Amino acid sequence: MNIENTESQMRKGLLELCILGIIFREKEAYPSDILEQLKKSNLIVLEGTLYPLLTRLKNAEVLTYRWEESPSGPPRKYYTLTKPGLKFYHQLLASWAELSDAVNHITAQ
Amino acid sequence: MNIENTESQMRKGLLELCILGIIFREKEAYPSDILEQLKKSNLIVLEGTLYPLLTRLKNAEVLTYRWEESPSGPPRKYYTLTKPGLKFYHQLLASWAELSDAVNHITAQ
Repeated sequence: MNIENTESQMRKGLLELCILGIIFREKEAYPSDILEQLKKSNLIVLEGTLYPLLTRLKNAEVLTYRWEESPSGPPRKYYTLTKPGLKFYHQLLASWAELSDAVNHITAQ
Repeated sequence: MNIENTESQMRKGLLELCILGIIFREKEAYPSDILEQLKKSNLIVLEGTLYPLLTRLKNAEVLTYRWEESPSGPPRKYYTLTKPGLKFYHQLLASWAELSDAVNHITAQ
């Protein structure tokens, strides 16, 4: 049994919540910023995973973005939560609280 | 954006850990018992989701089972953790502790 597969499955399920949490906390964030914050929390995510997720959240109107010139390199997409996105995030937070309580209860020694 | 999809993705990622947690706690458990325990923790899981997972964990030698006559109905498969399964479960528990800390940190208001 490959422990990495199961771990990556656990992380994958929580990635959307984490991305929204970072954007919520930072008010707005651009992709490399989000990757950096995830990495700080030991949640290693590849660009190839993050980009489609941001696009999906944008298409679902949970996120919106604006372009901004970068001091170095190409312009950046700064993502923010929309009003329905904020509601979505708070619902997700409540589900997380319930779910993590359930898991902690089940796995309590 | 469908909140149920995201929630079910979160639950799905943690299901394996929860199933192993229940079997560990109960020493041994049969499928309807596991479903009942999951339900008690508000983790509604369908038989059609549980059975293939148990088979996969059995094939990976994380779980083993023995048959036992049931006082009513057909004989039951009682699942237990194997020795490598115990190690796997404890590794998974450590990953869960780290991951849930990371998520709580990211989503702290």
